[in-house]
Amino acid sequence: MRLALIGVGLIGGSLAAALKAAGEVDHVVGFDIDPRAAAKGVAAGVIDRAAESMAEAVSSADVLILAVPVGAMREAMAGIAKHLPPQALVTDVGSTKVSVIADARATLGAAFGRFVPAHPIAGGERPGVEHTDAGLFQGRLAITTPTPDTDPAALDAIERLWRSAGARLERLAPDVHDRIFAAVSHLPHVLAFVLVEMIARSPDADAKFAHAGAGFRDFTRIAASSPQMWRDVCLANRVALASELNAFCESLAKLQEAIVGADGAALERVFQAASDARRRSPSVR
Amino acid sequence: MRLALIGVGLIGGSLAAALKAAGEVDHVVGFDIDPRAAAKGVAAGVIDRAAESMAEAVSSADVLILAVPVGAMREAMAGIAKHLPPQALVTDVGSTKVSVIADARATLGAAFGRFVPAHPIAGGERPGVEHTDAGLFQGRLAITTPTPDTDPAALDAIERLWRSAGARLERLAPDVHDRIFAAVSHLPHVLAFVLVEMIARSPDADAKFAHAGAGFRDFTRIAASSPQMWRDVCLANRVALASELNAFCESLAKLQEAIVGADGAALERVFQAASDARRRSPSVR
Repeated sequence: MRLALIGVGLIGGSLAAALKAAGEVDHVVGFDIDPRAAAKGVAAGVIDRAAESMAEAVSSADVLILAVPVGAMREAMAGIAKHLPPQALVTDVGSTKVSVIADARATLGAAFGRFVPAHPIAGGERPGVEHTDAGLFQGRLAITTPTPDTDPAALDAIERLWRSAGARLERLAPDVHDRIFAAVSHLPHVLAFVLVEMIARSPDADAKFAHAGAGFRDFTRIAASSPQMWRDVCLANRVALASELNAFCESLAKLQEAIVGADGAALERVFQAASDARRRSPSVR
Repeated sequence: MRLALIGVGLIGGSLAAALKAAGEVDHVVGFDIDPRAAAKGVAAGVIDRAAESMAEAVSSADVLILAVPVGAMREAMAGIAKHLPPQALVTDVGSTKVSVIADARATLGAAFGRFVPAHPIAGGERPGVEHTDAGLFQGRLAITTPTPDTDPAALDAIERLWRSAGARLERLAPDVHDRIFAAVSHLPHVLAFVLVEMIARSPDADAKFAHAGAGFRDFTRIAASSPQMWRDVCLANRVALASELNAFCESLAKLQEAIVGADGAALERVFQAASDARRRSPSVR
C-alpha cells in the first residue's frame, strides 16, 4: 500500500512509521508546505520520498493522511481534491472534528464518503518529524467520527490501520467529540496559556517564575504547546469552547465570591468534589 | 537539641527526620490533635515520643515546629504560648505568611521575636507522616519571612536548621511572599479545582474524564490535593489571591472575546507570549 502524508510532523510521521513497521504500508511519500520538514522526514527515514507538489504526492496514493494544523485543513483538502485517485481513502489527525468535516464536505466532492475523520489522543513533548516514534499510538485511543455519508468500508479500512499502529478505537459523533475535548483539552490549554501570559506580563514576573514549584510546572506544561496549533484549535472549535469557557467563568466567579466572603464551607465543597473526582477517575490518576 | 513537632504529617515529619539525620536534633516529641497521626509518627520512627498534651510536647523543647494547616495555626500557637520555655525558638511551615505572622503576633506575646516564619517549597504526592522522606528538602527552597521584630539570632538559628535539612534559603517580605505564591501556587490550585469540579458536575462527566489525555492529567494533578489544606490557604491569603483572581478573570474575558470573535491574531499573541515565557523560565521547564 502506498501512503501519502500531507504535513510532515510528529503525529503524521509517527503514524507512517507505525504503519510501515506493521507491514501495512510499503511506500510513503510526504508533502509539506515547508520543504525543510519534508527533507527532515526523508533524512529521518520516515518518508521515502519528498513530493515536489501536492499533485505528485497524491496521484499514486492508496491512502492519504492529512496531518496539518486544523486551520490549514481546508486548503490542504482543496489541494488534494483535484488529484485524488478514484479509490483512495483519506483520513486526518486533527484535534477538532466538526470543522474538519465541514472543510471536507466543502472541498472533497464525491470523495467525501471516503474521508474518515480521526483524532488520535497522543502527542509528544517535542514536535517535528525528527522525533517520530513508531510506538506513539501503542495502547492510546484513536477516535473516529464518521458521518452518515462516510463509506462503511472506508471507515473499516482506516480503523484497521489505526489498530495496526497499536491504537484502541472508539467512534463518537463529531459534535460529541468536540464538546468533550473542549472541556478536557482545549479549555485547560486556554487556562494554562492565560495564566502564564498574565504572570509574564506582571511587574514581578521573574520573582514569580523563580518561585514556581512542581505544581505550577505540571499545571503549565501545556502552555509550552504550539501557539499556532492552539490558535487553530480554539478557532475551529470556538462554539463548544466558548460554551465551556462560559461555564468555567461562572464557576470561577462563584468561587471568587466564596474567597472574598471567607466562606470556607463553600470552598471546601468545591475542592472536595474536585479532589474526589480527580482521585476516582482511573484515566487521570 | 530537643525538637517539638506540632502537627505530625509529611512536611513536619520529613523536617524532623532530616534534622535527626543531620545530627542537629537528638529527640523529637510530637503532638497532633489526631492521636492516630502521632502514633503513626512513633511507628514510623519519625518521632521518639507522642505527647499526650500540648503542654507536655512544648515544655522541654529547644525548637518548636508548627506543621499544622494554616487555618489551625492560631489555635496551635495559643496552645503553645503558655507552655513555651523562655529560650525556645518557634518556626512554622505554612504556605501563607502574612496570616501566620498575624496569628503569632496575636498569641505568642514576648516570644513573638523568637518566631521565625518559614515556608519550604516542597511536598509529596502522598500526605501523612508514614510517607516521611528525610531527603524531601534536599536542594529545595526554604523561604523565611522575618519581620522587623524577629530576633536576628533566632532567624540565623532556624535558617541554619533548614540548611542542615538540605534546603537553599531565601528571605522575602511576608507580603511579597504571599503575592508571589498567590500567583504561582494558590491561583493554579483554584483553577484546577474549579475545572475538575465543573466537569464532574456536567451531565457527560464520565465521557469527559474517560477521554482526558496526558495534558489534562498534568494540568489537574494539583486538584487531588487536600481540600481542607487548600480551603485554609485560600482563606488565609484571600486578599492577594482575590487580586490575582481578578487579574486572571480579566485576561480570560479578553481571550474569550477573541475566541467568540474569531480573532486569531489576538489568540496567537497570548499563546505565543505564554509559550515563550514557559520555555524561557528555567525553574519551570
